[in-house]
Amino acid sequence: MSKAIKQNLADSKKMSAELFCLTYGAMVTEMLKDYEDPKDVTIQLDKMGFNMGTRLADDFLAKNANVPRCVDTRQIADVLCRNAIPCYLGVSATASSWTSGDREFTITLESNPLTELVQVPTNLVSAGLSYSQLIAGAIRGALEAVHFKVYASATDSGANTEIRIRFDQVLKDSLPAGEDD
Amino acid sequence: MSKAIKQNLADSKKMSAELFCLTYGAMVTEMLKDYEDPKDVTIQLDKMGFNMGTRLADDFLAKNANVPRCVDTRQIADVLCRNAIPCYLGVSATASSWTSGDREFTITLESNPLTELVQVPTNLVSAGLSYSQLIAGAIRGALEAVHFKVYASATDSGANTEIRIRFDQVLKDSLPAGEDD
Repeated sequence: MSKAIKQNLADSKKMSAELFCLTYGAMVTEMLKDYEDPKDVTIQLDKMGFNMGTRLADDFLAKNANVPRCVDTRQIADVLCRNAIPCYLGVSATASSWTSGDREFTITLESNPLTELVQVPTNLVSAGLSYSQLIAGAIRGALEAVHFKVYASATDSGANTEIRIRFDQVLKDSLPAGEDD
Repeated sequence: MSKAIKQNLADSKKMSAELFCLTYGAMVTEMLKDYEDPKDVTIQLDKMGFNMGTRLADDFLAKNANVPRCVDTRQIADVLCRNAIPCYLGVSATASSWTSGDREFTITLESNPLTELVQVPTNLVSAGLSYSQLIAGAIRGALEAVHFKVYASATDSGANTEIRIRFDQVLKDSLPAGEDD
């Protein structure tokens, strides 16, 4: 198989969102059994997401050579909403609620494949479980891979998932290697 | 939104296989930390898959009213390879190695989205980890939901994943509710 065809196939690899949703649900259920505090599950999902995000950033850059380098948060939000999120989650997203001189904004997912077939018990949410924190962590990891340090937290409310992103700083030298602790 | 359009949208929901692969990898890594024996991880993946399979069977039947009821294992293999696996995993599959008077057969996945970006350490495989057992469990669960009791085990070898399926019996009355123990 030629390299060009292989690349095209790789670009177009898609699978069922239902299967992903159920696998993710099984994973979170498993983690809730292991960690006593739902807050710890949120922290763990964030770390997993971060590590995935650094890998997805590589994948994204390899497949989107035409996407220009971002120089401000408006551009970052634009690439996330118009390219990265549709590419990996298969849903559209919008950025809004800009505050702190454009250093903070909210990304709203049109729908969320993670929560499509599940109902997260409200008592777990009250106890600190952010079910979709994997996505927020992945955004944080992906942006850190391209030298933007941000904080990101996810909130599920009904069918909508909002990810609040706060820009911290541009990182100079280091390349992230993954978060283990 | 009309019901017909909603149904079509639901049918076509797809997402990135890369994201699924990385999430699954993070989940298995997490489980390997929790269970001392890789064999126990395989058992757990099989149970998770079973529970997912019973849900996916409902989803599959709702979306594929035109698929006829299977009366033998050849037809089961055909629906799995031509409809169910392409629909959920996004890859094609073939059935072969029929033995025991067609009671046993092997499904070979053309490629495996679960293992696409990961390398499973051979010492874990030797110790009993079947990384893709989730898929075998899901097939077992889905078939049990339509009253076919089977045994299924997955083997990853290089880029190929083989799932060996052994038909046990047709279940008469009970509907499976999920496996908890």
